[in-house]
Amino acid sequence: MSTAGQVIRCKAAVAWESGKPLSIEEVEVAPPQKNEVRIKILFTSLCHTDVYFWDAKGQNPLFPRILGHEAGGIVESVGEGVTDLQPGDHVLPIFTGECKECRHCLSEESNMCDLLRINTDRGAMIHDGKSRFSINGKPIYHFLGTSTFSEYTVVHVGQVAKINPDAPLDKVCVLSCGISTGFGATVNVAKPKKGQSVAVFGLGAVGLAAAEGARVSGASRIIGVDLNPNRFEEAKKFGVTEFVNPKDHNKPVQEVIAEMTGGGVDRSVECTGSVQAMISAFECVHDGWGVAVLVGVPNKDDAFKTHPVNLLNERTLKGTFFGNYKPRSDIPAVVEKYMNKELDLDKFITHSVPFSEINKAFDYMLKGEGLRCMIRMDA
Amino acid sequence: MSTAGQVIRCKAAVAWESGKPLSIEEVEVAPPQKNEVRIKILFTSLCHTDVYFWDAKGQNPLFPRILGHEAGGIVESVGEGVTDLQPGDHVLPIFTGECKECRHCLSEESNMCDLLRINTDRGAMIHDGKSRFSINGKPIYHFLGTSTFSEYTVVHVGQVAKINPDAPLDKVCVLSCGISTGFGATVNVAKPKKGQSVAVFGLGAVGLAAAEGARVSGASRIIGVDLNPNRFEEAKKFGVTEFVNPKDHNKPVQEVIAEMTGGGVDRSVECTGSVQAMISAFECVHDGWGVAVLVGVPNKDDAFKTHPVNLLNERTLKGTFFGNYKPRSDIPAVVEKYMNKELDLDKFITHSVPFSEINKAFDYMLKGEGLRCMIRMDA
Repeated sequence: MSTAGQVIRCKAAVAWESGKPLSIEEVEVAPPQKNEVRIKILFTSLCHTDVYFWDAKGQNPLFPRILGHEAGGIVESVGEGVTDLQPGDHVLPIFTGECKECRHCLSEESNMCDLLRINTDRGAMIHDGKSRFSINGKPIYHFLGTSTFSEYTVVHVGQVAKINPDAPLDKVCVLSCGISTGFGATVNVAKPKKGQSVAVFGLGAVGLAAAEGARVSGASRIIGVDLNPNRFEEAKKFGVTEFVNPKDHNKPVQEVIAEMTGGGVDRSVECTGSVQAMISAFECVHDGWGVAVLVGVPNKDDAFKTHPVNLLNERTLKGTFFGNYKPRSDIPAVVEKYMNKELDLDKFITHSVPFSEINKAFDYMLKGEGLRCMIRMDA
Repeated sequence: MSTAGQVIRCKAAVAWESGKPLSIEEVEVAPPQKNEVRIKILFTSLCHTDVYFWDAKGQNPLFPRILGHEAGGIVESVGEGVTDLQPGDHVLPIFTGECKECRHCLSEESNMCDLLRINTDRGAMIHDGKSRFSINGKPIYHFLGTSTFSEYTVVHVGQVAKINPDAPLDKVCVLSCGISTGFGATVNVAKPKKGQSVAVFGLGAVGLAAAEGARVSGASRIIGVDLNPNRFEEAKKFGVTEFVNPKDHNKPVQEVIAEMTGGGVDRSVECTGSVQAMISAFECVHDGWGVAVLVGVPNKDDAFKTHPVNLLNERTLKGTFFGNYKPRSDIPAVVEKYMNKELDLDKFITHSVPFSEINKAFDYMLKGEGLRCMIRMDA
């Protein structure tokens, strides 16, 4: 029996307050409204951003909320005006959107859609400012327009990438956020040429995806920088050839890298969000042609500071957001890269838990264990 | 009678001490040594950098010295090992070089030659560390390897661009430095697309050359920023369509520009060297695709400071040196642009004096009058 147009009752993991374990509840999920899609989530993984907003230190706390934004699922039903998706389509919900009409969407160079750009403070749908989730009629806030820690969720059509139905959702779901962010930062923005050297700051999932991008691009040396020496062994699987721990040196890491490379690396990608790492990532690239790409999200009060001569010496500094991918136009092709074995995702998925044990995924991340924990909704 | 191999006695304008008028003296110019070229200078123009090192505030004072680096001339003789130039060739000496062998010269992306990169502290030839200029046997220092305020000068072959002999040297000589720097910053680095908006900070000769680059690229709006309102009328000749004087506003100029343009310009080019203007030039470009290019040379103690979110929002910050042109490989083609009327140089040349009145050129520049003063060596 079709559930289209009906309220669906299903399980969701609700964050009732900051820093407290999620609680699996029965929720009501309203039908999709204009330009919205209701999706049955099959797999979702946990990203730092979920933990960051669950912890809610320094952000506006918005509770109760259904977190989650890295996921794969199947369209259950579509709302009015949705023409390019239909029930049964395999999709990835994405935390940022593509309306295909604004200046950013019409620009080849940008993916920062005016209508659907990430908004962490928004807890409702843009169509009517209301939530589609409720418990006994009381609304539960959305998160990033995705809220994938639920068996069913409602997402704006501009935030839904339709992908190859043969792609295994328990693997490609990690392309919804972190892996595309890191991989795209290298292949779309830093663009190392074959044989060039690349430094990657931060060897978490995003940084390792950046390293994977460098490996795929044919980089000759991939220098991983991290304060945690335990990460090097795993990083080797992602093509990292050398490791620098800033703690091991009594001079700035940019000087260490310049000495290792005869003046600097050709490209660098910063994936920590530490402003000091950003400055090091910029200053460690070679003059004349070096390109530094900033991925990590800084604190509100940080200031990026460098001597302008570092720029005049023909270095380039670029920021990127979601690897410069447009969610609907570009992500399906990244899924194809996985299908064609040009990009390996399996090695990012180090843990797996049933939905009922979703709090374990939080524990793994808080302990810094592994990269991505896959949460199986049907288990 | 050939002068090759002989010491040439000729007139040169010697700076004996900082800030004092140049004095026209008879100097001896030694024959070119290995990989050197002796050039008869026909025209030379005055650039701010000459005045800066003549004034010698904050730099190592190196006197007596023959300044000058924007010039056009004819090869008189060549030293050992010089195969691609011969007497009679029309050339522009350039303040920075291209050895064609180092990593920078072999890179498509860089023009910062390891061997012949600009070195303002060097007062002698690199072959033997000696000067080719003397007065009664006492050496006079070189400047930037060019020292064009002399009827004859000796230059490393890597700093000599061979150009079309039909090109008028009294016009194309300005391509030796400032005009190529500004023009190249726009066309080679900022690369505005047809119809895009460009802001230019600083409307001196370099900034106006940057505006000319924007005009040639088909920019729809060219916004000139300068503290001197007298510059706008002249700037219109270079395609500047709108003028912003930061003094007229009680908010940062980047906010004024963002309001004028619905969020920011597509490209900006900073040609003042003021670190505050650099920051404004960066922050005034549109998120998603904006590119800011820094041309102006900052003070030693300046710090470029911005919030990293300005970068994460997909802005790009790039520095450039000599418009990213490789002196020998690229400048001849810029001369051809002038010959084909794709680039207008005549409007940059606002004054002209005979060599004997070279100090007038300094007066014009110190008063901020006009753009380039052409100094005629034969007059």
